[in-house]
Amino acid sequence: MAQYAKPLNRLINELGKLPGIGGKTAQRLAFHILSMPEGEAESIAESITYARRNMKYCSVCGNLTDSDPCSICTDQSRERDVICVVEDPRDVLAMERIKDFHGLYHVLHGAISPMEGIGPDDINLRSLIVRLQENDVKEVILATNPNIEGEATAMYIAKLIKPSGIEVSRIAHGIPVGGDLEYADEMTLFKAMEGRRKL
Amino acid sequence: MAQYAKPLNRLINELGKLPGIGGKTAQRLAFHILSMPEGEAESIAESITYARRNMKYCSVCGNLTDSDPCSICTDQSRERDVICVVEDPRDVLAMERIKDFHGLYHVLHGAISPMEGIGPDDINLRSLIVRLQENDVKEVILATNPNIEGEATAMYIAKLIKPSGIEVSRIAHGIPVGGDLEYADEMTLFKAMEGRRKL
Repeated sequence: MAQYAKPLNRLINELGKLPGIGGKTAQRLAFHILSMPEGEAESIAESITYARRNMKYCSVCGNLTDSDPCSICTDQSRERDVICVVEDPRDVLAMERIKDFHGLYHVLHGAISPMEGIGPDDINLRSLIVRLQENDVKEVILATNPNIEGEATAMYIAKLIKPSGIEVSRIAHGIPVGGDLEYADEMTLFKAMEGRRKL
Repeated sequence: MAQYAKPLNRLINELGKLPGIGGKTAQRLAFHILSMPEGEAESIAESITYARRNMKYCSVCGNLTDSDPCSICTDQSRERDVICVVEDPRDVLAMERIKDFHGLYHVLHGAISPMEGIGPDDINLRSLIVRLQENDVKEVILATNPNIEGEATAMYIAKLIKPSGIEVSRIAHGIPVGGDLEYADEMTLFKAMEGRRKL
């Protein structure tokens, strides 16, 4: 044998499938898991199954949620005529952290990227148009990432919406260009929201 | 809400308990797990539970195994009178990879370290002595790591065993194959010179 016993080997293989976890890291994690009290190890396993089974996408905004529609979409105290469009569920959390935006969200799950063959139909965009037709929305804030794809996506959506008379704005470039919304600090994100311009 | 929905939050927290997995990495892994097919996510969860439940320490050599005694200890084709003493189950695998050693192992699960309050009774040493008394062993090879703790442990075990007349040896220290003399530290170079053999 030049391999560990089967259960350990399988664990190392499974952990190695996760992004950024190489062979050596998978081995280190596996050994750590074996040294944990059984209850703690099972708690990790359970949380994986539980999350995978219970998390879904909100049928209204596309955000990750355990209840459909999500807690933001059903929150009647929020401004229901402002929709902030983001690329990723993580961006919703980043926005919520500044505690300044009280409208609703729409999560695209990506950005238009002709280079990668991702067109307008490949992101969660059609449902935004339907939302705008069916609801009385005053403003759409485009908070896609300030990189080429995010910018292109914002421009595309702006063109699409403008004829309807809805105000369309883009968050300001307070966020460093080439950066990632998810990692922006709260002040930068706040400035970016504050300095949004009409398109 | 400035937090994700509960199942996702719990998953991020659980993953964050693993060594070397910080908050951002835990989040990245959690999102990846949510994007996996349900079967694959459950396979990871299962492998954790399965490994934790089925892996145990061999009652003879202390190695990690799913059957007790382990497959090496029960392998009658191996030389049963040579025991290689290592610190960690990972070291057994490293040894097995060279396919040159056909004896048995003894895993200490650590090394003596007075600085950290780890004495001879805190490692899997007593069972080695019992093994040597109950079996006909010709040679004990000390393959603990070549650092202060490993060296001290080897010296301690050597002193303990020698009176019984069993041959005790220590793996050689020197320049790693493929290494560069120029970059070798002084201690390694000293050991390499000290351990020189006639050609």
